Amino acid sequence: MFFKKKWNPRGLHVYITGGSQGLGLALAILVAKKGAHVSIVARTQSKLEKALIELEAVRQSPDQIFRSYSFALDNAESSAAALKAASEGHGGQVPDAVITCAGASKPMFLLDMEEQDLTQGMINGYWVQAWTAFAAAKQMAREGKKGKIVLVSSTLGFMSFVGYSSYSPAKHALRGLAEALHSELMLYGIDTHIFFPPTMYTPGFDEENKTKPAITRTIESTDEGLTAEQAASALLIGVENGEAHITGDLITSLFRASTRGAAPRSNAALDVVYDFIALIGVPIWRRSVDKQVLAHREEHQQYLQKKGFF
Amino acid sequence: MFFKKKWNPRGLHVYITGGSQGLGLALAILVAKKGAHVSIVARTQSKLEKALIELEAVRQSPDQIFRSYSFALDNAESSAAALKAASEGHGGQVPDAVITCAGASKPMFLLDMEEQDLTQGMINGYWVQAWTAFAAAKQMAREGKKGKIVLVSSTLGFMSFVGYSSYSPAKHALRGLAEALHSELMLYGIDTHIFFPPTMYTPGFDEENKTKPAITRTIESTDEGLTAEQAASALLIGVENGEAHITGDLITSLFRASTRGAAPRSNAALDVVYDFIALIGVPIWRRSVDKQVLAHREEHQQYLQKKGFF
Repeated sequence: MFFKKKWNPRGLHVYITGGSQGLGLALAILVAKKGAHVSIVARTQSKLEKALIELEAVRQSPDQIFRSYSFALDNAESSAAALKAASEGHGGQVPDAVITCAGASKPMFLLDMEEQDLTQGMINGYWVQAWTAFAAAKQMAREGKKGKIVLVSSTLGFMSFVGYSSYSPAKHALRGLAEALHSELMLYGIDTHIFFPPTMYTPGFDEENKTKPAITRTIESTDEGLTAEQAASALLIGVENGEAHITGDLITSLFRASTRGAAPRSNAALDVVYDFIALIGVPIWRRSVDKQVLAHREEHQQYLQKKGFF
Repeated sequence: MFFKKKWNPRGLHVYITGGSQGLGLALAILVAKKGAHVSIVARTQSKLEKALIELEAVRQSPDQIFRSYSFALDNAESSAAALKAASEGHGGQVPDAVITCAGASKPMFLLDMEEQDLTQGMINGYWVQAWTAFAAAKQMAREGKKGKIVLVSSTLGFMSFVGYSSYSPAKHALRGLAEALHSELMLYGIDTHIFFPPTMYTPGFDEENKTKPAITRTIESTDEGLTAEQAASALLIGVENGEAHITGDLITSLFRASTRGAAPRSNAALDVVYDFIALIGVPIWRRSVDKQVLAHREEHQQYLQKKGFF
């Protein structure tokens, strides 16, 4: 509806944050296979080096430029500096596509959280992508580059439940940012997309499981999840097709359709079907989740007592 | 469906942030008229004093306790301190209902924003309420108080457009927080609600108009808006009826129904009708907004040139 020609990354400069592992790396490999120049950004130098070796292994042409940049992305300055560093490798030009896969989640009970868990939740779920998006939008507008900005939210950007009071706000915030940018960046011909992956079996998932409450794990157990490669493929197909809200699994698609609001649509007919299924299915799911939470009450009281909360 | 008996604030302690003006003050007056004890929190002492006079004017009984507390609410510590101060006036017990009306918006073009505009957007739109909600949830759980937490988002917590890239993320984040809390706080019998007001003709609205881009104003001009009193009344009716997502005008109700996702529903049948209207109406609205944005391109380029952006 909004974009007619399929987007093709061949020969373009694709900038991927969180590109040393998980979704970011899988996506970097995918666009490298399609002939893109790829810049990956992450904190850990050793992981970046290993990732570059994987990129070299799928090189399609000697002209392709693969580079890695070690930067923290949790603040405005260094997010802008990372983008600038990657631009310098391409004649000072801003990348054609900026895809923000960086992020982390630390599921916990609210009562176990300290102030810092909450602020870090917003930094690692929102700012770690927002600062890059802001820097990219400004630079693209400045250069007149009709580029692409792709944010990565989560199924938890459409809904939420126990355990995610520091993460869902950040992932919802990204959705709000994407919609504001989608509207505003039309002024410059810049496209905004946002991807909502479900559980992904990545190093990040192993990390978040360390703090995840048992009840949260139980509720999630119905989510089949995607591998990093499946998620990367879904993201890229969505971007190629010009979808504003991109999903890669049925459950999240049901949530997408039933929280569509004013989001630009790509397949209105299919979304009506999804919306209808969600109208019946989601309340049943919600009720079963509520039941699980209520059934957990007593065990939770014991847990709090043991921790000396009262 | 989820709550059978109407909630009644009579004799309860209702704690309202942003209670010295606008929605917060209108709500304070409303619950005072219904016989509640009211604590209002805001920064400016002189405004609090004036507000207390208005509360005294609607006093129903000599037993009602009306107090005001001057605190900044933009950080965790002082938000918790404000709640503690108000609790001390009631035998050290946490309030029965905590309603967070504090907040501010500063609409701007993204390209005109500095780092600080973005971080302040999140503080004034999200943290100014989230810190109070976190403190209240912990204290209610600790005391076994089956209280109420009511957040105040915005129509811009359901959707967004040009000018709101610092505000919508914050208002979306509140929605995510409300949904996570709604699920988690079931463990303690605490209810969570969230109100999504449209434009409200309040001092805050006059303030945001100072920076609002013309295109943003044009797009908003179809929104009829509510007075602070109308909005306060809608909020209270929603809380009394136990609605999780509360709206007070038709447009926002359409967005509520079409972004309902997994939010607990109060009137499923009506929401199906709203969802259907939204299915047809919202894309038409979105298209007209997109057209307005695109038509503004040239004027915007001139604006940027004049500002020396390029």
